[in-house]
Amino acid sequence: MPTRLAARTTGIAPFRVVEIMERAWAHERTTGRRVIPLCVGEPGEGTPEVGLAAARRLLEHPGIHYTPALGTHSLRNALSAMYAERHGVEVPAERICVTVGASGALFLALAALVGADEGLLLADPGYPCNRHMARILGSHAVAVPVGADSHYQLTAELVESRWAAGVTGVLAATPSNPTGTVIEPGELAAIADVVAERDGALIVDEIYGELVYGRRRHTVLADRPDAFVVNSFSKTFGMTGWRIGWLVCPSWAMRTVEVLAQNLLISPPAPSQAAALGCLSADGWQEAERRRQAYEVRRDLVVGELRRLGFGVPIVPEGAFYAYADCSAFLRPGEDSEALCHRLIETAEVAVTPGTDFGDHGATHHVRFSYAGATEDLVEGLRRLAATLG
Amino acid sequence: MPTRLAARTTGIAPFRVVEIMERAWAHERTTGRRVIPLCVGEPGEGTPEVGLAAARRLLEHPGIHYTPALGTHSLRNALSAMYAERHGVEVPAERICVTVGASGALFLALAALVGADEGLLLADPGYPCNRHMARILGSHAVAVPVGADSHYQLTAELVESRWAAGVTGVLAATPSNPTGTVIEPGELAAIADVVAERDGALIVDEIYGELVYGRRRHTVLADRPDAFVVNSFSKTFGMTGWRIGWLVCPSWAMRTVEVLAQNLLISPPAPSQAAALGCLSADGWQEAERRRQAYEVRRDLVVGELRRLGFGVPIVPEGAFYAYADCSAFLRPGEDSEALCHRLIETAEVAVTPGTDFGDHGATHHVRFSYAGATEDLVEGLRRLAATLG
Repeated sequence: MPTRLAARTTGIAPFRVVEIMERAWAHERTTGRRVIPLCVGEPGEGTPEVGLAAARRLLEHPGIHYTPALGTHSLRNALSAMYAERHGVEVPAERICVTVGASGALFLALAALVGADEGLLLADPGYPCNRHMARILGSHAVAVPVGADSHYQLTAELVESRWAAGVTGVLAATPSNPTGTVIEPGELAAIADVVAERDGALIVDEIYGELVYGRRRHTVLADRPDAFVVNSFSKTFGMTGWRIGWLVCPSWAMRTVEVLAQNLLISPPAPSQAAALGCLSADGWQEAERRRQAYEVRRDLVVGELRRLGFGVPIVPEGAFYAYADCSAFLRPGEDSEALCHRLIETAEVAVTPGTDFGDHGATHHVRFSYAGATEDLVEGLRRLAATLG
Repeated sequence: MPTRLAARTTGIAPFRVVEIMERAWAHERTTGRRVIPLCVGEPGEGTPEVGLAAARRLLEHPGIHYTPALGTHSLRNALSAMYAERHGVEVPAERICVTVGASGALFLALAALVGADEGLLLADPGYPCNRHMARILGSHAVAVPVGADSHYQLTAELVESRWAAGVTGVLAATPSNPTGTVIEPGELAAIADVVAERDGALIVDEIYGELVYGRRRHTVLADRPDAFVVNSFSKTFGMTGWRIGWLVCPSWAMRTVEVLAQNLLISPPAPSQAAALGCLSADGWQEAERRRQAYEVRRDLVVGELRRLGFGVPIVPEGAFYAYADCSAFLRPGEDSEALCHRLIETAEVAVTPGTDFGDHGATHHVRFSYAGATEDLVEGLRRLAATLG
């Protein structure tokens, strides 16, 4: 048998945060002491009881069959109602495709929209899988370096100036992972217009759209109903392990997305759809709001303390549960962000994600702090960092 | 916004079985009478209690988090133990990747092995998604027409003679959907040798490997440990709605498959993994064996009756839960298999899948009968067919 792999597999990087976690676990095994995880973007509180209960009801009976490729009618209707109630935006259920996580939603959107040898314009730093998915499909990412001057986000001006031959899609993520920054609604609409003038497609990652602080939640669909929107239950409801999300498409793309979904995965997992439907309820949203308020408290805590210690956090993140920080002040000669993260596991016993997980731009002197976990972990992690670095 | 879709989306067909089901439902709504479904490949009995119970135990607690991208260690270990116990074959857990259904497994294998513009050789008729997945990846299927003379299967000779420039992979499915026929172990090993001589990769779909009648179960891994094997809990345990399967790879491919899995879907759904682990138990296998015996009874029933009615079933299927039948004797002038299937919904009130779902070769004069459902449905469906066609 061969040892030959397809060319597309070269240049697809693993998650560095996984390597960090493995180093942290190794340190724990060696020392018997706990490493505080401020690295993973995974809500600590898990699935709300109302979601668990809905799934348990489904599991009372053995008939857990394929659902339609686009998801159950009840879940699609509930998502449509959610857009009406929480955003005042009409999104018919017929334009919603339930997916295997936001990952499945993004892959469907890219497969439908960005052809082989075509380009997807996106921000650097950004979520690493985006560019790798494009590569798996034979497309390529056109990374636009973004800094504090544009709130670590794409702008209409940047999209216009960086649009190149072969670009057919733009991916905007607001709030952003890893920076937690938001694209203002007016700017997002302006980006949509630039993309539309070039006959491109705009995909907006709104995974963290419910987790915003000191501002109103906003969906691009309120202003530009033809955008493609990627979303997920994972962050809002702490449902990462269920792998359930959705994609909103304009009507003209739905049949293509449905056929792609049929052929790629047949249908999303039925128990996960049941749990998700359970969370789209008054109890579910009450729990989500309680958590959002707790994140906001932690956001203020982590940004204040990082600044006090000497990390560079020029923009206060207004969403998600991350702080993206310039760590130049703490790098020893020859050290980059990965080396610093390794050292912090050893010395401070705190795990942080290196910027290299999110692209190239500024990656070697930035790190990402996640405050998705417990407040006591955050407090203890910051205390340890202060003791080591302060 | 544009109405422009990526070029790869052209030529990806929807499942015709879905269209048949929708026609059947429409007929039921109009007439108030039930259409007997002999079309879908979905076990009627659903998830064994031991699987449901395992998932319910997981759902007692909210912490349903991402698992490793390759799946939980416990499920991978249990699959490794399964290969030892049921096949006498050593497959280390380190070579097993848990996936979102067999669909997820096949996609990972193709992404890892068959490059853009490269070819995947497969049998026609065959499972339709295979060739569409290749197209989504920019690869292409090289369909090999197979008939009764080769038991509707690839042979080493066929692979040798149809190997073309650019082919880098061969997909064999045994037992086959839609034909239920099996590749003899010696022939499968010979295919593996032909593929290896050409530095290609062999992927074997063993989804129906537990559902064989009057013969021993067999995995290609017993003879050719370096093959890629796609498998699933869906058919053996009636777990279609959970979307859980696995991929076995040679060691040299595992890191690539892991990185692809991370980037494409992060991890398989945790509740589905819990349910699957529950089924890999004495109770689970006892239930699977009871069902296998019931399928065998139904296989004899359906093949005998189809032959008596005048359908062409030259090879008795030795696996899966399908009979693939030449329906030429029943085609009216100008009618093809799809038209016949539509007519059977109207007149016999029985839903059957047209051969056009499975490729081009003989597709217009073949239909697929599924006996995955209840025995009483099968008996009533065959009675209705006899009354209409007999």
